[in-house]
Amino acid sequence: MHTDTRAFAAHPRASFDTAARSAVATDRSGYEPPTLPDAVVHAESVDDVVQALRLAHEHGLPVVPRGAGTGLAGGSSAHAGEIVLDVSRMNRIVGIDPVEMIAVVQPGVLNAEVNAAAAEHGLFYAPDPASTAICSIGGNIATNAGGMWCAKYGVTRESVLGLTVVLADGRILRTGRSTIKGVTGYDLNALFIGSEGTLGVVVEATLRLRPRPVRTETLAAYFPDVEAAGRAASAITAARIQPSILELMDGPTMDAVDQAEGTRHRELGGAFLLAQTDGFGAHLELDEIASAISPYATTVHRAADPEEAAALVKARRDAIPALEKLGRVSIGDIAVPRNRLADAFAGLEEIGSRTGTRIFSVAHAADGNLHPMIVVDPEESITSGPAKAALADMFHLAQRLGGTLTGEHGVGILKREWVGEELGATSVEIQRALKSALDPTGILNPGKAI
Amino acid sequence: MHTDTRAFAAHPRASFDTAARSAVATDRSGYEPPTLPDAVVHAESVDDVVQALRLAHEHGLPVVPRGAGTGLAGGSSAHAGEIVLDVSRMNRIVGIDPVEMIAVVQPGVLNAEVNAAAAEHGLFYAPDPASTAICSIGGNIATNAGGMWCAKYGVTRESVLGLTVVLADGRILRTGRSTIKGVTGYDLNALFIGSEGTLGVVVEATLRLRPRPVRTETLAAYFPDVEAAGRAASAITAARIQPSILELMDGPTMDAVDQAEGTRHRELGGAFLLAQTDGFGAHLELDEIASAISPYATTVHRAADPEEAAALVKARRDAIPALEKLGRVSIGDIAVPRNRLADAFAGLEEIGSRTGTRIFSVAHAADGNLHPMIVVDPEESITSGPAKAALADMFHLAQRLGGTLTGEHGVGILKREWVGEELGATSVEIQRALKSALDPTGILNPGKAI
Ligand SMILES: Cc1cc2nc3c(=O)[nH]c(=O)nc-3n(C[C@H](O)[C@H](O)[C@H](O)COP(=O)(O)OP(=O)(O)OC[C@H]3O[C@@H](n4cnc5c(N)ncnc54)[C@H](O)[C@@H]3O)c2cc1C
Ligand SMILES: Cc1cc2nc3c(=O)[nH]c(=O)nc-3n(C[C@H](O)[C@H](O)[C@H](O)COP(=O)(O)OP(=O)(O)OC[C@H]3O[C@@H](n4cnc5c(N)ncnc54)[C@H](O)[C@@H]3O)c2cc1C
Repeated sequence: MHTDTRAFAAHPRASFDTAARSAVATDRSGYEPPTLPDAVVHAESVDDVVQALRLAHEHGLPVVPRGAGTGLAGGSSAHAGEIVLDVSRMNRIVGIDPVEMIAVVQPGVLNAEVNAAAAEHGLFYAPDPASTAICSIGGNIATNAGGMWCAKYGVTRESVLGLTVVLADGRILRTGRSTIKGVTGYDLNALFIGSEGTLGVVVEATLRLRPRPVRTETLAAYFPDVEAAGRAASAITAARIQPSILELMDGPTMDAVDQAEGTRHRELGGAFLLAQTDGFGAHLELDEIASAISPYATTVHRAADPEEAAALVKARRDAIPALEKLGRVSIGDIAVPRNRLADAFAGLEEIGSRTGTRIFSVAHAADGNLHPMIVVDPEESITSGPAKAALADMFHLAQRLGGTLTGEHGVGILKREWVGEELGATSVEIQRALKSALDPTGILNPGKAI
Repeated sequence: MHTDTRAFAAHPRASFDTAARSAVATDRSGYEPPTLPDAVVHAESVDDVVQALRLAHEHGLPVVPRGAGTGLAGGSSAHAGEIVLDVSRMNRIVGIDPVEMIAVVQPGVLNAEVNAAAAEHGLFYAPDPASTAICSIGGNIATNAGGMWCAKYGVTRESVLGLTVVLADGRILRTGRSTIKGVTGYDLNALFIGSEGTLGVVVEATLRLRPRPVRTETLAAYFPDVEAAGRAASAITAARIQPSILELMDGPTMDAVDQAEGTRHRELGGAFLLAQTDGFGAHLELDEIASAISPYATTVHRAADPEEAAALVKARRDAIPALEKLGRVSIGDIAVPRNRLADAFAGLEEIGSRTGTRIFSVAHAADGNLHPMIVVDPEESITSGPAKAALADMFHLAQRLGGTLTGEHGVGILKREWVGEELGATSVEIQRALKSALDPTGILNPGKAI
């Protein structure tokens, strides 16, 4: 053990136990750190977080903030010499104001728990990652997580009104406000949202809830292949219809889901598109979607009732877990202009055959955000060899199409090397200057994100 | 003239002419700086901006960025020793991509010009300040401007995908991207949006356009008094309906508009509420609004056709110009929780009688954002005496109701003294640290915003 980290013996919630350290060593990215972190602090209060950061600041020790550990970029992975600051036990919903449609929550609350509590008041929390049942609000904020409903309601950034953050030196900062609008001072909310634990630790959040739509309509469409499905999704954008959900799944992923769940989607086509509309005119809007995609689809099926709709949504949510049964998964997260989806799929196919990797794809199609998933054997590496080569190629494919390295999962540790190329030298300098302004000794999640 | 500012004689677009300096000395806030700025640079290109900031940086000279000068907080006002950097001549629409629904524009383009160009493709740009015909996109970005459609579509922040910014030392920074989603690096877009010219000069913006709604429905409702109208607006929020426009105007403002425009709104009631819905179910949603407000309203009138709807929208847009005919106007901009509107109006009435000022009010009611306008005689000051006292009281009223000093106009020079009280010491420290990181010598719009 690194000598200095012994300073954490002074923290009442610190554990140096091997099992405890192993449990928080990495996330769901498939990344395996070479060594274990030195200790983990299981914070139960703001005070625990403040104390941990004061200790770390005083002794110059690196701290890795951690929520539920479902990240897909290695952002909460940690190694020897580092302390994991786990806030998953700070998991209370502090309050819901159903009139103002606001929830105040601790960071460790799971996304699905917020949505369940909101539902009791006829409300919902819009950013709903497929991992809703297992990921934390703090992690969602730190990654600016997206989800299916983001097609219409925006990502995490659009649903966070205010934060309480513990800074690197233990000071407590409040950002934002509890009104919908407000421009006093710089937009510090946005600075922390998506900062992947490198600027501060979120210990409380004021979230914007929205009314559950009066009406929701759902369809599933099947296509000969994924390029046709991509073209159909772009046709919806081009027809200027605003679906609340627009999710795409390729044939190999459909196979995996069918196998894991006993469903039979693959029999109906080589690619799957799930579309949902909501609001007073949801049925009329779904008609428009059906006619926009009909030139491309082989089957268009409207859900007869909410149960059938829920089963279709579940098929999409099951994609990642189903692939995890097939091997070790490295999950890409590129975003491209919305009318380049078919080109992106064609490019991915080419990358698969060139690098000899198996690539499965799903996409948040309304936003041009694709998740190409490279599946390798469980003992194979995802940070070297063909999987790594394919990930690099995906980044360059996204760049070529005018897109970006990561739409919603973050950079973490796995995508760092391409950040400079995407952002350019001046942007990297500015990012570093901001990092230094907030964390001058660089103790917060070093080596991640930027 | 301050000796150092002579360095600007080297800039090809600099003018030291008195008329030119007077023309850019202040904005529409009613604030009159005691002296004129030393010079004005009429930038016509990115290069002109770079050169101006290099000169300023080298000689340590303060620069005041300026768009169209319609600001309401004194943000672009300047005085002796300062150089105004006017970008209003950089006013080209660089391009519109109707498929991706994106516009690339220079900063001096007027908001209404973007909307006119977008309309040719069946699109619109959502943040539409009442000043749409006269304010610039760069100014909108620097203030995070709002408008009527923001009720449904969010403020400027939600419609900016990327920026090109010239930094204090003349370096060029690109922020954001042209895809809808993306999380590589910190959210630098958001940092510059609303920064009131204190962090950099916006020289190009990539804007998100949206499809024009297939259907729009409009109503005007009249109430005995403004508190009843406030209660009606809150009832719409409580009924969980999402209007695309929800604007409120009090009786005295209706009088002023009627007088200026020859309309007769005041005959129908003591307060006016304009509501619009859009989308496939707009008519059904408007029915819901009508029934939510009917317990409070004396008259509910649905617009029969688009012309009538446009006339109702125009009545609201005319409010500020109509009041400017009555005297010098100091425009408040508080935001409160959406169910506290009636309390805010009651508080304003009390402030008016206590300070002996005439207060006229309009509100973006769906967001709880009020513009209480203090009208004094043309020769009276708005930065001292009763007008100043009323502004201070409004801030404290907002605080008491859980709200904020400024919803969309910015802090500028007129609201600086309350920023610390609203944000708290740690936040102010962090804001200053960010400012130093981006503008270490403090030349950009000193004494404004923070
Ligand atoms: C099956 C599956 C499906 C998924 N689907 C989606 C999806 O649809 N959309 C999507 O966006 N993501 C998705 N993800 C990824 C993941 O769930 C999200 O990134 C989520 O936001 C991570 O939350 P977490 O609590 O697990 O964070 P962690 O993995 O614990 O941490 C993620 C990052 O946030 C930081 N962090 C965590 N908590 C805090 C805090 N309180 N303060 C400061 N920093 C903190 C960490 O340091 C790390 O950098 C999926 C993951 C899985 C396994
Ligand atoms: C009649 C009337 C109605 C109005 N209605 C609304 C409304 O509904 N909603 C609303 O939000 N506002 C409203 N306003 C206020 C005003 O129009 C907005 O604040 C607008 O965004 C200012 O734009 P501008 O180009 O005039 O900026 P300016 O007044 O020139 O400048 C405003 C601020 O932005 C900075 N700035 C300007 N351009 C740049 C640039 N390119 N780069 C960096 N900084 C820059 C300046 O330094 C200053 O701090 C209204 C004003 C009037 C007169």
